[in-house]
Amino acid sequence: MLFFRNDYGQGCIPEILEQMNQTNMQSHVGYGEDEICMHAKQLIQSKMVDHTVDVHFISGGTLTNQTVIKSMLRPFEAVISCDTGHIATHETGAIEATGHKVITVQNVNGKLTPALIQKSFDEHMLTYEHLVYPKMVYISNATEFGTVYTREELTALHEKCQELGLYLYMDGARLGAALMSGVDYSLNDLAAWCDVFYIGGTKNGALMGEAVVIINDSLKPYFRFCMKQNGAMMAKGWLLGIQFAGLFENDAFYTVAKHANEMAAQIQDALFDLKYPFLMKSDTNQIFPVVNENEYVFLKEKVDFELWENRKEGKVIRFVTSWSTTQEQVDALITLLKQAKELKEE
Amino acid sequence: MLFFRNDYGQGCIPEILEQMNQTNMQSHVGYGEDEICMHAKQLIQSKMVDHTVDVHFISGGTLTNQTVIKSMLRPFEAVISCDTGHIATHETGAIEATGHKVITVQNVNGKLTPALIQKSFDEHMLTYEHLVYPKMVYISNATEFGTVYTREELTALHEKCQELGLYLYMDGARLGAALMSGVDYSLNDLAAWCDVFYIGGTKNGALMGEAVVIINDSLKPYFRFCMKQNGAMMAKGWLLGIQFAGLFENDAFYTVAKHANEMAAQIQDALFDLKYPFLMKSDTNQIFPVVNENEYVFLKEKVDFELWENRKEGKVIRFVTSWSTTQEQVDALITLLKQAKELKEE
Amino acid sequence: MLFFRNDYGQGCIPEILEQMNQTNMQSHVGYGEDEICMHAKQLIQSKMVDHTVDVHFISGGTLTNQTVIKSMLRPFEAVISCDTGHIATHETGAIEATGHKVITVQNVNGKLTPALIQKSFDEHMLTYEHLVYPKMVYISNATEFGTVYTREELTALHEKCQELGLYLYMDGARLGAALMSGVDYSLNDLAAWCDVFYIGGTKNGALMGEAVVIINDSLKPYFRFCMKQNGAMMAKGWLLGIQFAGLFENDAFYTVAKHANEMAAQIQDALFDLKYPFLMKSDTNQIFPVVNENEYVFLKEKVDFELWENRKEGKVIRFVTSWSTTQEQVDALITLLKQAKELKEE
Amino acid sequence: MLFFRNDYGQGCIPEILEQMNQTNMQSHVGYGEDEICMHAKQLIQSKMVDHTVDVHFISGGTLTNQTVIKSMLRPFEAVISCDTGHIATHETGAIEATGHKVITVQNVNGKLTPALIQKSFDEHMLTYEHLVYPKMVYISNATEFGTVYTREELTALHEKCQELGLYLYMDGARLGAALMSGVDYSLNDLAAWCDVFYIGGTKNGALMGEAVVIINDSLKPYFRFCMKQNGAMMAKGWLLGIQFAGLFENDAFYTVAKHANEMAAQIQDALFDLKYPFLMKSDTNQIFPVVNENEYVFLKEKVDFELWENRKEGKVIRFVTSWSTTQEQVDALITLLKQAKELKEE
Repeated sequence: MLFFRNDYGQGCIPEILEQMNQTNMQSHVGYGEDEICMHAKQLIQSKMVDHTVDVHFISGGTLTNQTVIKSMLRPFEAVISCDTGHIATHETGAIEATGHKVITVQNVNGKLTPALIQKSFDEHMLTYEHLVYPKMVYISNATEFGTVYTREELTALHEKCQELGLYLYMDGARLGAALMSGVDYSLNDLAAWCDVFYIGGTKNGALMGEAVVIINDSLKPYFRFCMKQNGAMMAKGWLLGIQFAGLFENDAFYTVAKHANEMAAQIQDALFDLKYPFLMKSDTNQIFPVVNENEYVFLKEKVDFELWENRKEGKVIRFVTSWSTTQEQVDALITLLKQAKELKEE
Repeated sequence: MLFFRNDYGQGCIPEILEQMNQTNMQSHVGYGEDEICMHAKQLIQSKMVDHTVDVHFISGGTLTNQTVIKSMLRPFEAVISCDTGHIATHETGAIEATGHKVITVQNVNGKLTPALIQKSFDEHMLTYEHLVYPKMVYISNATEFGTVYTREELTALHEKCQELGLYLYMDGARLGAALMSGVDYSLNDLAAWCDVFYIGGTKNGALMGEAVVIINDSLKPYFRFCMKQNGAMMAKGWLLGIQFAGLFENDAFYTVAKHANEMAAQIQDALFDLKYPFLMKSDTNQIFPVVNENEYVFLKEKVDFELWENRKEGKVIRFVTSWSTTQEQVDALITLLKQAKELKEE
Repeated sequence: MLFFRNDYGQGCIPEILEQMNQTNMQSHVGYGEDEICMHAKQLIQSKMVDHTVDVHFISGGTLTNQTVIKSMLRPFEAVISCDTGHIATHETGAIEATGHKVITVQNVNGKLTPALIQKSFDEHMLTYEHLVYPKMVYISNATEFGTVYTREELTALHEKCQELGLYLYMDGARLGAALMSGVDYSLNDLAAWCDVFYIGGTKNGALMGEAVVIINDSLKPYFRFCMKQNGAMMAKGWLLGIQFAGLFENDAFYTVAKHANEMAAQIQDALFDLKYPFLMKSDTNQIFPVVNENEYVFLKEKVDFELWENRKEGKVIRFVTSWSTTQEQVDALITLLKQAKELKEE
Repeated sequence: MLFFRNDYGQGCIPEILEQMNQTNMQSHVGYGEDEICMHAKQLIQSKMVDHTVDVHFISGGTLTNQTVIKSMLRPFEAVISCDTGHIATHETGAIEATGHKVITVQNVNGKLTPALIQKSFDEHMLTYEHLVYPKMVYISNATEFGTVYTREELTALHEKCQELGLYLYMDGARLGAALMSGVDYSLNDLAAWCDVFYIGGTKNGALMGEAVVIINDSLKPYFRFCMKQNGAMMAKGWLLGIQFAGLFENDAFYTVAKHANEMAAQIQDALFDLKYPFLMKSDTNQIFPVVNENEYVFLKEKVDFELWENRKEGKVIRFVTSWSTTQEQVDALITLLKQAKELKEE
């Protein structure tokens, strides 16, 4: 069965596994204070002009979002997210579990805009202390719909946050895919725009792990206390160091994401040629075609993918590519998509 | 200046104050275990066929909502509310502060419907454990817009909650106004439909206090632990007993609410005759006319009221009546409303 | 039956009740932003050289401790208390419910000392981020045992806290009793030593209410958001203003506490003369004699008091006096204590 | 440098690494619902007569304790632990962060006893709702001091918990070491005595991972919601399945623990022969000798170990062995210990 279910369905890129094999019997200090972690942090810091950013490794995305947000907000402060934001949906209320409200506003192609932030902020200032205080803006890049923020959009968000005194936090679970989608910005630019962001490893070739990058000095102190309290400090912490050393030593982080995007683009192009409708055009490794019942049943037998949403115009499904997707798999999928289309015409 | 700002702007009805004066030097056990509280609880229980309901007194609405919801939900469980529900707005994230998500759905005249609940429930079952589990439905009656649930609406909500295994919790901050709005149901009916509800004292003639009524047996145990932990157990607890004894001994609870509704109805009728537009027709003691800038400025000088919302068709303002509103005040307000209307025509 | 159970068993001092009667029909802004609250705050501020302290009124002690501590600590920060501290015992885990650990150290006559703080702090620094970070010191004055901190003890605690970067927070549920016990310090001194403290109304003649005084500028912002989120902002907030206006307009706060202390001293002197043993010598309005079984049974029939602890040397009981205790009641208690002692000798 | 710092300082046993290599390119469902996890769960279930126990895999110990305790307690309920319990110390207040108090009682050789539990329970029942309600007992086995509960001790704890209606939860971070220390009980017995326990992988040869075993039916439902909300559900969940399949397929779990215990026993015997004093005699893989300053300085240069505590009789240090400790390392350590002792005599 062809696997296009998600980008975290296989192990890790060979260089990471190789490193795990080679270092398996070495002794390390625990809790992420080892030399491999130090090395991996420096690799990430070296991508930015400001080498003083703090870098921390956490095993997964929900744990990362929870730790970052809990660490940075006072009890009555809230985070603005669009309604499709991961923290607003698929984290089982993890943010609320830390005591903070997630203020949701309706997304525009999976994105937040300065105007939406301003409107929400204004509404909250109206009756002031009877409402939560919006203090952080949460965005995902790439978004949950596979779209990507442009340089102009990010600078505008940055300026709006500065104007209103809000922290800008970027969830980079699929940051590699965003950076490799043809945008004209880099990790260094993100460090200039965001107060905090994280670089996703789990969905970009690592066994696990997200790298939190804290730029705002006032948010740096005592972050490790928050990690430990939240169960987000691994005993064998160097394992996370290995993941990010593997991703950044030879820029596998980028090549892997580029590969996934290219595989997805081929599928999207084919879908377009075959005249499948889309939920939204994607710039990255997730694509969302709409199929009819016949097509769905046909594909479901031969391909592992996710049903995203039932709409009256059809079933929105999701194909995801990753570091492990091969040209053969893509070709096979495209062949099946053609067959599905012909099937329909019978 | 005429006071139509809210229904909690003056002290309390005379019978309560009288009782406070008379009992001031008496000695009582603390924390609500005194005889006055027992008496007040029995008065409330006597309104229902099922005398085994638990009754607890808490000093205010936010504290009540917080204590009830925290007591009854497991960590990953959430409460469905309409977007205008008090817990979703004017409680500064008090529910999220206890760790629970408030799932908001768009209101219909300030109300929730079985269809909205079903839709939200279904959405949450789709990806199951990656989303919170909706376990409670929160409604306000009267609503934040002054509207009132009908008998049919409440039985339908009750049935939907039973079907889906949800607790039905009614916030009765303005329950007196609802019950005196001409509906064909009583406290006894509410006990049959709800798992928990509270009877508002603060906004219906008491100095403070809400009476929580727990009907569902499984929700009764250890509620006082939750109260104490939440800071919701008053040292001089009999003061809350006095409030509810005063409201229920001679049914002041009802006469006071009836009075407020009648005063509001006169204002609403006058507004209608004067051709002021409305946000929504109210059945209770809050009314929401829309005024233009000139009218607003004129009225603002002579009347204490709240600006509810700026809309492009004008300013939505709110007039609230209460137990302390007099016929003279209503007459004076109507006169001013006439003058404002004439003013406009100049 | 004679009442010596506690200092919150009757209503309030006449001047407060009088004020409630007089203002009952006046209209006020809600949530503590009215003129009576402003006036009461100024009365309290006027007791200090630094008039810029923030004053907030909250209805009870647990709610106050919870709101203050939650407002001031980051998630991983903890508060050091002695094991007999109210937050460590009789608040049903209210502080832990806000996410913060209460670090307990063994009391010395109900008190904390700089040495105990230093020891606890050092232990926590040892493995650092694997333990909570102690950031606040909590003391009660008068203590739960009726003892009082001296000027020397408080300045030493202040200096230790300054040295270690800890906030000093004083729970003043019985602060009146402490200040009237013969100490050579005042509210103004407390403002110099503490970062935050509260002045107890509930146990010193008010119907309810504690006045939080925030001295440390960095702890002032947004406190009202925390109050509201915690259910600690009363709708009819001026009622709390009336309590503190009543207590401070003519210094009833002090005369009332002095009276209670004097009544207690008479009882303690009599107990001493009658050769009853004590748990601890008290300087304030709570006294803790040890009685045998016969004495206990005899007294229990005629006096309402609390059993504090069963020890092998006898039953520790607690007599508490208050603003409402009369000379006649004290005389009657002393007579009973004599009879109990004679009884024993039969 | 010799490594005796802890039992989580190297990677994992070869069979686990091998399995990771072999399955790296296989596709799996995420979040622990894959076939490898199912297989690993069955291996664990097969160790018990009752095959209906629920098994869940979580990446680390703090996250496990937090998830289990939060899932099982109501807000006002607390967990009794001895003062040396991991949750009471080295988890940065992780349990309090979920809102629950950890009630600490003084340990007896690192252990809890039925008498200590009864005493704490009784104290809490005295003033009832003003104190938290103790509902769970937490024990570590092996303890933080390397001691092990006997069959008699565990059955007595089980009976006491049953009598008082408390859940018994065993933290098995070092359960392998306990079971291989010569005790006459097995995983199956633990399932009969505990409501919940966990089997530690991290400290017994796995890269990471703890296996939660839930026996009490009432505690089973919705546990995965709690995991997800707590950030305790890994995306690539089969990695945890591989750890436990590796530990239980050929009982490496036991052989590895036995090896570590034997290595430790050799060191302990040598220390005894060399007349080093001990903090406590250990039955497992952690040993706590007391060394003087000279010995400490000498050893510190050549061995990586932890300073446990400064006492006036000397420095308590900790040597820990693990699956990766070799006979050569033990011999080398013993030689150094001899030299240190001779050094002293100079």
